[in-house]
Amino acid sequence: MSSAIPSSAVPIPSTFSAEAYFSTQLPPPGLEAEVNGVREFLHRQNAAGRKVVLVTSGGTTVPLELNVVRFLDNFSAGTRGATSAEYFLEAGYAVIFMHRQFSLQPFSRHYSHSTNPFLDFLEIETSTSTSSSTSDFDSPSPTDSNTQLPVFEPDEEVPRICVTASKRADLLRVLTAYRAVQKAGTLHTVTFVTVNEYLWLLRAISHELAFSGRRAMYYLAAAVSDFFLPTQKMSEHKIQSGKGSLVIEMDQVPKILKPMVDEWTPEGFIVSFKLETDPKLLVPKARQALERYGHQVVIGNDLHRRKFEVVFVSRPGDSGDIKESWLRLDEEEVKDGKEIEKDIISELVQRHLAWIGVTI
Amino acid sequence: MSSAIPSSAVPIPSTFSAEAYFSTQLPPPGLEAEVNGVREFLHRQNAAGRKVVLVTSGGTTVPLELNVVRFLDNFSAGTRGATSAEYFLEAGYAVIFMHRQFSLQPFSRHYSHSTNPFLDFLEIETSTSTSSSTSDFDSPSPTDSNTQLPVFEPDEEVPRICVTASKRADLLRVLTAYRAVQKAGTLHTVTFVTVNEYLWLLRAISHELAFSGRRAMYYLAAAVSDFFLPTQKMSEHKIQSGKGSLVIEMDQVPKILKPMVDEWTPEGFIVSFKLETDPKLLVPKARQALERYGHQVVIGNDLHRRKFEVVFVSRPGDSGDIKESWLRLDEEEVKDGKEIEKDIISELVQRHLAWIGVTI
Repeated sequence: MSSAIPSSAVPIPSTFSAEAYFSTQLPPPGLEAEVNGVREFLHRQNAAGRKVVLVTSGGTTVPLELNVVRFLDNFSAGTRGATSAEYFLEAGYAVIFMHRQFSLQPFSRHYSHSTNPFLDFLEIETSTSTSSSTSDFDSPSPTDSNTQLPVFEPDEEVPRICVTASKRADLLRVLTAYRAVQKAGTLHTVTFVTVNEYLWLLRAISHELAFSGRRAMYYLAAAVSDFFLPTQKMSEHKIQSGKGSLVIEMDQVPKILKPMVDEWTPEGFIVSFKLETDPKLLVPKARQALERYGHQVVIGNDLHRRKFEVVFVSRPGDSGDIKESWLRLDEEEVKDGKEIEKDIISELVQRHLAWIGVTI
Repeated sequence: MSSAIPSSAVPIPSTFSAEAYFSTQLPPPGLEAEVNGVREFLHRQNAAGRKVVLVTSGGTTVPLELNVVRFLDNFSAGTRGATSAEYFLEAGYAVIFMHRQFSLQPFSRHYSHSTNPFLDFLEIETSTSTSSSTSDFDSPSPTDSNTQLPVFEPDEEVPRICVTASKRADLLRVLTAYRAVQKAGTLHTVTFVTVNEYLWLLRAISHELAFSGRRAMYYLAAAVSDFFLPTQKMSEHKIQSGKGSLVIEMDQVPKILKPMVDEWTPEGFIVSFKLETDPKLLVPKARQALERYGHQVVIGNDLHRRKFEVVFVSRPGDSGDIKESWLRLDEEEVKDGKEIEKDIISELVQRHLAWIGVTI
């Protein structure tokens, strides 16, 4: 899904309001198909009376050329979003997982090819024994031709390939949860790459989710670009590295929390994130965001502490003074490998129930 | 591996020669350990008389802050590099696979979590039957609690998890090749993220590979940043999105092919890549690179045609006029899913043998 040059020439504002953004930047092709997919998904969830959460995850990009060779990116593996999606699913929510293409996803996140490659825990079963480790494996001697691939006659059975014993229990947990979610049809996946795709998708999905009223939650964990290049300023071809320096001048991305709260989805329970690297700025910026946009929760995290500590910033009972409440994993929990998202989602599920008006 | 601010203040040149770069930008922590790993690997390969290729793959980043939140990136999934590495291994080469962290790797590249998730082709075997599809799976009814995880008594056996029949043949091919390479110990993996890490690693590994003389090939498929931010110009904390536009002024990355050819590894067979989006520029720029640096081959590819067409630019017999020779997959081959890297590597293996001086 990439942006094309708009056909009419429109004066380009230096600071974009949300309205100006959507009037001057073209929607990505494929947007309508994505929205239809979301609409069908939500139809089923509403019929089942299920609560829904839109989880956004991963970083957005700002392409520097129309034929993208270079782009500005925001650092985000998608760990927070992918992990949280699993806990929301476990808590009975339907999840729209809107994530950066190729970033972490629920379930498969446990098996990164870099850190936990699944090829390492598969065994090929020969008729008499199981070959797993390379020492067991009956391979040709390591000559110049490393790989003599087995050739099978049409009626010869292909050996079974199974998960090694030591990895079974963990994989079973993940696989069971994965299959249950597939069967229940409670996970819908949407992808974005550029900040333009992200903004158009978020707006369109918010419009659809508005029909779920208070049953909709927004968990905006994506790392969204603050700055972008309007298509009118973009070069068509790869910027040539000539003799001098490269100067990139970028405009601010409009803050879409404002129209989200005011217009697109006034009934939704909106949770945004604030990531800071300077600890002194964390709470002030989180409070500022809540004041400015009027949504329900800002979850603040320090880049270096985010795996074991977050701060919830909100107005208790949705009125009155803004309060902070810190959520931390203790040393024992960290050692046990507990994921902080379990507690984050637990807390949000309760607050969402209160928002919906259910007596606990 | 991230860069720290150098302790001494040095005047910052606006255009960096390779020498100036390595004097003013600090090496990444962990460089020495990486080099030691490469050295040990090469020791074994040299003892076996094996040819070695350094394959670089994926894009490099230019962080905009010292506490990285944003960075400039080069578009590259790593397909070319990861696919080529497999064919080099098949051809009997030892491979140093120097790739962007989390980009595609040989073997696991076939099982992208987005396009071919392995969780989808695993079956849980119950005592009486195999449960694979969600309709077979004996899961709890889809209520608000989607996942009732099985609990196993200590002496109860965990069910086996095996690959579904229809996926076995393909996976067996990949798994067999993977295991053979692990057993032969012919694949060594190195990771980078930033352009700074890339440059320091490339220089250090070239120095080690110089000992392999003509038996060393360099297959430089990585998408390297042309521009970067010297650490001295970088901000420490996340750049705050204030009211105005963001201006980023970047310096040119030194062209390291020059010192590679002239100083670091004069005997190596060096293959570089040229990616262009404007077809008119492809051959001229590829020829220009060969003229400028004096290495062995430039492989040119057009962004939109690279999966089925490349151009080899070289001086036949290493002297005389520069010639181009096009390598294309025909329609039949494309339809059969043939990978162009098979032919690229085939061609390069022959040229490398000639370089080494082996009579074919």
